[in-house]
Formats: sequence, structure tokens, C-alpha cells
Amino acid sequence: MTADIAQHLAAIQAEMAARTDRGQVADYIPQLAAVDTAQFGLSVVLADGTQHSTGDSAVPFSIQSISKVFGLAIALGRLGDQLWTRVRREPSGLAFNSILQLESEDGIPRNPFINAGAIVTTDAALARRAPREYLAELLTFVRTAAGDEDIHIDRAVAKSETETGHRNFALAHFLKAEGNLTNAPELVLGAYFHQCAIAMTVDQLARAGRFLAGFQRLIAPERTRRINALMLTCGHYDGSGEFAFRVGLPGKSGVGGGILAIAPGRASIAVWSPGLNAQGNSQLGTEALEMLARRTGWSIFG
Amino acid sequence: MTADIAQHLAAIQAEMAARTDRGQVADYIPQLAAVDTAQFGLSVVLADGTQHSTGDSAVPFSIQSISKVFGLAIALGRLGDQLWTRVRREPSGLAFNSILQLESEDGIPRNPFINAGAIVTTDAALARRAPREYLAELLTFVRTAAGDEDIHIDRAVAKSETETGHRNFALAHFLKAEGNLTNAPELVLGAYFHQCAIAMTVDQLARAGRFLAGFQRLIAPERTRRINALMLTCGHYDGSGEFAFRVGLPGKSGVGGGILAIAPGRASIAVWSPGLNAQGNSQLGTEALEMLARRTGWSIFG
Amino acid sequence: MTADIAQHLAAIQAEMAARTDRGQVADYIPQLAAVDTAQFGLSVVLADGTQHSTGDSAVPFSIQSISKVFGLAIALGRLGDQLWTRVRREPSGLAFNSILQLESEDGIPRNPFINAGAIVTTDAALARRAPREYLAELLTFVRTAAGDEDIHIDRAVAKSETETGHRNFALAHFLKAEGNLTNAPELVLGAYFHQCAIAMTVDQLARAGRFLAGFQRLIAPERTRRINALMLTCGHYDGSGEFAFRVGLPGKSGVGGGILAIAPGRASIAVWSPGLNAQGNSQLGTEALEMLARRTGWSIFG
Amino acid sequence: MTADIAQHLAAIQAEMAARTDRGQVADYIPQLAAVDTAQFGLSVVLADGTQHSTGDSAVPFSIQSISKVFGLAIALGRLGDQLWTRVRREPSGLAFNSILQLESEDGIPRNPFINAGAIVTTDAALARRAPREYLAELLTFVRTAAGDEDIHIDRAVAKSETETGHRNFALAHFLKAEGNLTNAPELVLGAYFHQCAIAMTVDQLARAGRFLAGFQRLIAPERTRRINALMLTCGHYDGSGEFAFRVGLPGKSGVGGGILAIAPGRASIAVWSPGLNAQGNSQLGTEALEMLARRTGWSIFG
Repeated sequence: MTADIAQHLAAIQAEMAARTDRGQVADYIPQLAAVDTAQFGLSVVLADGTQHSTGDSAVPFSIQSISKVFGLAIALGRLGDQLWTRVRREPSGLAFNSILQLESEDGIPRNPFINAGAIVTTDAALARRAPREYLAELLTFVRTAAGDEDIHIDRAVAKSETETGHRNFALAHFLKAEGNLTNAPELVLGAYFHQCAIAMTVDQLARAGRFLAGFQRLIAPERTRRINALMLTCGHYDGSGEFAFRVGLPGKSGVGGGILAIAPGRASIAVWSPGLNAQGNSQLGTEALEMLARRTGWSIFG
Repeated sequence: MTADIAQHLAAIQAEMAARTDRGQVADYIPQLAAVDTAQFGLSVVLADGTQHSTGDSAVPFSIQSISKVFGLAIALGRLGDQLWTRVRREPSGLAFNSILQLESEDGIPRNPFINAGAIVTTDAALARRAPREYLAELLTFVRTAAGDEDIHIDRAVAKSETETGHRNFALAHFLKAEGNLTNAPELVLGAYFHQCAIAMTVDQLARAGRFLAGFQRLIAPERTRRINALMLTCGHYDGSGEFAFRVGLPGKSGVGGGILAIAPGRASIAVWSPGLNAQGNSQLGTEALEMLARRTGWSIFG
Repeated sequence: MTADIAQHLAAIQAEMAARTDRGQVADYIPQLAAVDTAQFGLSVVLADGTQHSTGDSAVPFSIQSISKVFGLAIALGRLGDQLWTRVRREPSGLAFNSILQLESEDGIPRNPFINAGAIVTTDAALARRAPREYLAELLTFVRTAAGDEDIHIDRAVAKSETETGHRNFALAHFLKAEGNLTNAPELVLGAYFHQCAIAMTVDQLARAGRFLAGFQRLIAPERTRRINALMLTCGHYDGSGEFAFRVGLPGKSGVGGGILAIAPGRASIAVWSPGLNAQGNSQLGTEALEMLARRTGWSIFG
Repeated sequence: MTADIAQHLAAIQAEMAARTDRGQVADYIPQLAAVDTAQFGLSVVLADGTQHSTGDSAVPFSIQSISKVFGLAIALGRLGDQLWTRVRREPSGLAFNSILQLESEDGIPRNPFINAGAIVTTDAALARRAPREYLAELLTFVRTAAGDEDIHIDRAVAKSETETGHRNFALAHFLKAEGNLTNAPELVLGAYFHQCAIAMTVDQLARAGRFLAGFQRLIAPERTRRINALMLTCGHYDGSGEFAFRVGLPGKSGVGGGILAIAPGRASIAVWSPGLNAQGNSQLGTEALEMLARRTGWSIFG
């Protein structure tokens, strides 16, 4: 297997290097707009504990929405199933930052991975603490998961998001108006923008996903199964069905170009390439995962 | 395993028999409204070919929307990936018979399992044939899958649907207006209503699902994987996320109270209990599958 | 006044003749697609009973949705205010043939001038009669209003609409499914398509609008006021606000390029030019009415 | 006429005093929630300059959204027709504070009287000035219109709105995200909340409406006509069609229970009763205007 996986990674890396259509970087903040789309990194941790990487696997990138997976784990640890009274578990069928459904559904976001749901989840994880306390807990969780103390928040990214994140402010105020935010919108968004600004390499991210693959016990197995289910149905916004159809693995993407994908019991996979497709998910990242799943037979669908 | 599964089924059967809240039968046609909610049947076919059943496993019921899985297999056989130009692969986030999204998305249904998508799929499977030719092919497919010639269409059910199916007529005419129906609406709906009126027992249905579990090769493995992915993300309408979260298996429900669920490589499962929950899926059926998945560890999410 | 109005009409006629951008004819049925956009007719009946016309004022055209005004008058005569339990009186904010709002608002159309509302109104006016009886009453009403027996239904137009009107069939079946249609969809649409296929000249149409201007008592004054109010707020679909803003008169447009406009107590006005603007209303017709209202000071808004 | 109007007012006042179902006061801020629903005031200024009042016509109330009429007049004075590139002129078909349409229509509000449109209008009227400069201009305009220097902003009301107006903050941030706000959301909302907090009596408000009735020239007649048209089609949110149907006059309501209605060339009318109906418009105010229009024949629809 170990020999095979190295071969697969080399083949994928070669194919991705040859691609000329690499998608577009997110351009709403300068820190993301400046990233070079030539970059591509892929890392896999197997059940036997070995890790296999290729490409720019040691270059840190902004994990952005992938952080919602870790935030959800913490919120569930604090609130348990009570969280589900404030956010649902259904695909939204709409873009990640849509405010539309929120209005017709009384301020209860469809799932914890669209922005509105992640803001509610962050509010729940915050509880009555100061944002810095929550962020400290979050970093500890991520560092423990990755087995690496060298994971940080990129404060310049967080600051840029705060300055340009009017749509997220709209969502947060809307949630507050509907009574689904206990803290002040500014406070929750402060925590949220810093959470999204965690910088990691695919090496670190693949290791940080081991608890979801079942290789490391950080939270109850019942919960990892359910987080995986949410990643499968809701992890790629209005491209979630397509990702499940093509790749067949639970995955969570971020606008920085990263994707964390889980083959339960078999592998934790992280991929990064900054160019995005039309749905805002990493273009080469998605293609690389599709190739990997096909070559390895890791699809959870047979 | 065989011993275990028998124990699990007995335990589930006992628990379901004790339930007083059994949901409501569909009441839009007399044939469904008259079915006794006291009934419950469950059948499992394992990878070793053994079949284990409990309860009313030999009572035929109207499979209704579960038939969309077989119809999709046939349409894919005829058109291949061209089908995906006429229907998408995303969860809809709306009820099974919603016409709303269709309007804002130019007559391209979200997926082949909501009614609009199934009507398009039936139109594609029909091609230029008479409905009876398509229905003959469909019955042959289902009988072959189940290894049982004794599977029929309940014509009284089909007739009732034709008389009361105004919402489906609305969908079909809308699709025709948008140019996404090649045959006349009445023709397509004739085929569609008869397809939905196939009657099967859970014994038959569990066997008919073997090709999706990988126990029988009727269509290419790549296609079974993709049908399973669609069942996971879209098989329970706006309750699909919840089903994935709770049960963790690809499944397709029907308004007759049946559910076909697949544990790839491990089991093909059919359950039936006619009382429905708020989302229109079998109430006890869903609960039984949740118990079964927990007891067996068959969740595809770890 | 009589002298003035002749001058105004001449000036408007001259300006319209010079226009090169004349909009596009409706092309969904051959009978409308074939009409020459060079045509323009305008006719005004004043409070003193005089009639003043210019251009192609004696050429018959398909009045299409303008017929909804006459259908509404008849339905109100039959049902009185009970009609308002089945159709509301609010602008829809959406296109004339949208099915969207209908779904979120339980099958109660927003107003009697969007297609869904007109179908319900026709169903109400039909009562339990055969379509031909209703159509006879309607023609009698229109002929009496116009003082002209030579007004007919263009059966070729009605037939074309029946063959291509899938979106209207979708609306009717949807209304039936929601319980807001007493007759069979095919029956109601038969009456509806024939109603829309009434052919009139602007000379005839301007006279037929006299009862709305208060020059002729066919229905209670309270009702004409209310029909005028509905024409103002809902008579041009999602272009109603714009028409009120620019023209300032109650008006009802048809896809055949006609508009009936009312200056209460002052004038009944009919205009026709077959080219349509983006909202599906007569392009030159709207501009001509804007010029006329400005020159005469007939705006109801001061 | 003067004699008649006094009789009409007395009759209306008597009937309103007898009503037990008086609607509900707005309760989202303490200042509005505390107002006594027993109060009712009505004032009419006629073309001859006489003013006729009844009831609590000298009690100041928060004019709230009625202020949007004055804000629009100022924004039009500053920008002219350029304003219409940033806000449309169509009824929205939705509640006053809906954010839904904004998303599907690229951040261009439907009209200047729904909250989103009023926020854009305030932003336009502000231009690059400090809010206090704009508010000074606005107060000068209103005082001149009313011929009364004793009109003020209730700062406690403005402060309460600022603290609880999360939905308006959501709208403003959304507009900013869509690029349809030149100033910072907080700045615009500061101006907007103070504008809404103007306190007036119906005596003052009826006089302040004279320029819309054509009795006083503060802005071009063309503009008053157009503001009247907007009041008719959009002045009562999703109850605008109903108000036009029942009352037949351009009118603008506020959540404080006031309504300004205009009978062009005939009367400027202000009514106030704090209890609101289901659409958020004054319940007795609407009924009083319906009685008045029927008795006087002032409907603009004949």
C-alpha cells in the first residue's frame, strides 16, 4: 500500500503540474489574491500511521472554511446535541454566503458549514468567553490533532477579512435580529475571522484530520461519524453533491484553495492549490482527489 | 455475522412493534391511505449471499419513489453522462414536489430523485419508445435484479395517481415549457406513474438492491458508486442531510413507506412501514435503519 | 379640449412614426410573430363622448391580457367580494407567468392580472357553465361596452395558444393541486385561451374602456374604482411600478402590443404597437401614453 | 365643502372611538411599545388652505417610515434621476425589512420605501456630508413644508433603534457588500435612525404634505407626481395593493401608527392611531382613510 500510494501521488503530481487551466484565486482580500496558482501540494496519512506527501506540502496557506470542521468539534464538545436546535443538518442548495434561506427559515441556518451556520457555531463555541479564550482552545485542538505546535493564526488575513467582510456582518446582524446569536455580532465575527485565518501546510492538515479518519481519538467516534456525514452532504456548499458524485469522500473546502478529505478507516487527505472553480472550491484540489479516489478505490460508495 | 444479524433484526422488530407513534400514511390516493400502519418488515442481504428478514417481509407495498433508482440506472444505460446535461446532481434543499427551484434554474432539475428530476429521467429513458416498451424494460431490470419474476405494477395505483397527480402534471408542463421534455407531458407521466406503482415486498426489494451493494453486476461499478452517492445526498429530499447524519447509509425512500438502503460491500437492506414522518419518509423505517447501522457499524462515515 | 387632443395625437403619431427602436413582437405563437412592428394606433374617448384616433386605429389586434379586465368584471358580477378569497390584490413583483410565488403562498395568486390569478378568475367566472356559455357572456359584455357587435374571437390564435401554452397548463395544474380550481384545468384553459384571443381595434378598445372611465354604467362605480386601482398597481406585471411612475394612469397591457389606459372622469385611451419592451409591454404604446399624459396633465397623481 | 369635511371628520372620529379591535403597537423599542392605543387623530388640509382636525391631532408621535417621503425629496434634489440607478421603482411584494429580494437582485432595492431602499436613499442624500448636516437639511425641509419650527427629532427613539436595529444593520452591510453604499453602514444608519425618529402631530404632518397635494411648491411638480405614484404603488409595503384597492389614495405609513395620504389637488391628509394591523400599518388609520375617501369621493380611481 505504502508503495502504491507513493506511485499514485507521483502520478497525480505530474498530471496537476501539466494543467494550464488552474482556476482563479479568491481576490476579495489582498493576502489571498497574491498567492501563486502554480502551487500544488498533497499529503496523505494512512491507517498505519505513515504519511506521504508531494509538491508544495510544506507551504502554509490560509485554511479558511476548513476551520469550520474544528470549530464544530469544539462547539459539539461544549453544547452536545443542543447545538442542533440552533443550526440544522441539511444541504442548503445555495452559495456559502447566501442570506436568502435564513429569512424564510427564521434565522436557523441550514448547516454548520455555510457561513451563517458557522457564525452560529462560533457563537455557541464562544459561549460567554472572550474571543481570545476560544481561539486559544481552538489552536490547542488543532495543534494536538496535527501533533505540531507550529500552527498559527495569520493576523493580517484576519484583519483584512474584518475590513471587507460586509456580507458576514450582514449575516451576523441578521442572526442577531432573529435571536440566534447570544454574543454581539462584532465579537462573534472577531472570533470567526481569526478562526478562518489559521495557516497550515497540507502536511499539518492531513495529520490534523486523523481524528476524523478514526486514527486518533480526540472526540467520541459517534461525533466523528456525524461530522464526516456533514462534510459529505454540506462540505462544498452548492457543489457538495457534485463532489460526492465525483470524489465519493467526505471533504471540506476553503476559499484559500485547501480541501481536507477523509476516507474513514483508511486515510486522512489534505490537498491545496489556490485556484478555485466556479463554486469556489479548489479546482486542481478537486481533480486530484477524484484521481486519488479512483486509483485507490477509497470511495465510500463502493 | 449471520447469527449477529438475526439477533439485530429480532431486537429491532421487537422495538418497532412496541412503538405507538408510527407516523401517518400518505392519503392522497385511496390505495395508500388504506394501508395499515401496524405493519413493519425488514430484510437484509449480506455479502455472503444470505438473506435475513423479519416482520411483514412478504407483504407487497407500493415502492413509489424507490423506483427512481431503477429508472435512473436504465436512463444512464441509454444516455450515459449526457443525462447530466438535463438534470443536475445537487441536493435541492426543498420538498420532493417543489416547482420553485425549477423556475429560477431554467428548467434543469437539481437531481434525478426529486419529482421534476425523475420526470426528466423517465423522459430520457423513454427516448422515442412507447411507455409500455420502457415499462417492460424496467420490469425486466427489476425482476432480474431481484431474481424474481413475480414483481408487477399495481395498475389501480397508477390510475389513481394519474387522476390526482396535478402537481406532477404542473411539473411536467413546466419542464415542457422550458424545453426539457422531448415527449408529451401526458406520455411521460403515464410511464412515470406506472413506474412508481411497482409493488414489491422487502424480501424482493433487498435482493433488487444487491447490484448497488456490489454483490451483482448489472451496471458498471462506476455507475453504482455514483447512484449510491446520489442516494446519500438526495435520496430523502429535504430530509437527506438528516438521514445521512443519523443513519450514515445511502438510501432512497418512497411515499409508500419503503426505504432501500445500501452498505457498500456489506449489505443491501430494505425496510417498510407505511407511516410517514414530517418529511414524507417512513418513520419506523428510518428508526430501524438507524438502529441497524449503529448495531452493525455499517455507517460509511467510520 | 377637442382641438387640443387632436393636436396631441398628431404630435405623438409623428414622433412614434420616426422611432427606429420599436421593440420585439411576441414570438411564441406564429399569429403574433407575424405582425408588422411598423404599425401604431391610438384612440381616445373623452368625457364629452367624442372619440379621437390616429394611425392604425382600425386594424384589429389580439388583446390578450387586456381581456383580463373584462373577465374580472364578469367574475366580480358573479361572485362579488367572494372572489377575493381565491385571489389577492397585491402586486406580485414577478413576471406575468411566474409559478414561484404560488408555491410559497399556498396557491392563492397575488392578483387577478398575473396569469395564475387570471386563470382562477376565469374559473370563477365559468362557475359550472360550459366554456362557450362564459365566452358568449364575455363577448356580449365587450360588445356592449364598445357599442360594436363586430368584435370576435380569433380561433386560430386560441388554437395556437392551446398547443404551446405549457406554462399556463403548469399554472392551472398547480392551482388544481392546491385546491384553487373548481373546473378541470383543460376546461378553464380552453375558456382562458379563447378569452385572450379576442381581436379588437384601438377604436373599439377605447370605447370598451368607457365604463372604467365613468362614462358608461355597466357595473357598480365602486367596482370600476377598484378595477382601476388593480390596473394601476398590477396592470403591467413587474413593470407596474415603472408604468405608474412614468405614465401615472391605470393601465392594462397585452402581449399583442395593446394597452388600455384610463384617466378617470376624463378619458378612456387605447394604444397599440406590436413591438414589446423587456417587461413584455408595448414599447411605443408606453411611450405614447407617457407623452399623452404629460401633454394633457391627466396623471392621477397631480 | 368646509362644512362637509367637518361632518365627515366628526363621523369618522365617533366611529373610531367606538372600535374595540384597535391593532397592536409596535413593540421592538420601548418608546413605541408604551404608546396608548386609545389615541386617534386626523387632520385634513384642503385646497383652499383651510385645515380641519379631530381627535388627538396635537399629540406628537414618531413618524418613522413616513420620513422616507421627505428623505426621498431631498435625495432627488441632490441626485436627480441618477438616484434610480441605485434603487428601482417597483413594488417589492415582500415585507418592509426583507433582505431576500436584495440577494437575487444584486443589491438594488426594489423601491425607496422599503427599508433597504430608504437606506440607499439616505446614503445618496448624505453624499459626503456628516449625518448632522443632512439631518439639519431634512429638518429645515420638514419645518418649511409644515410651516412650523417646532418639529424635532426624538433622540431617545433614535438611540433605541440604533441599539435594536440588527435587521437594518444586516441590510446596510449587505448593501455595502454589494457596492451600493458609499458611506460606512454605521454612518448611514445613524442618519437613517434619526430621520425616522422625527416626531410630529397630525396637524403638522397634514401641513407638511401640502407640497405633494400641489398646494405648495417646494420641489418640481413632475417630482411630486412621481413621489405620489411611488406612495401609491409602494407606500404600504406588501399591503400597498390592498391600500390602493380600499382607499384609492397615495399614502405612506409608519410603524408609529401614522399615515400621510394625498388627494392630489384636493387634500393633504394625516391620520394617526398607534395600533397596527398584520401588515404593520395603522389599523384605525387605514379604516379612517377608507371612510374619508368614500365619503368625499377623493379616490384617484374615479
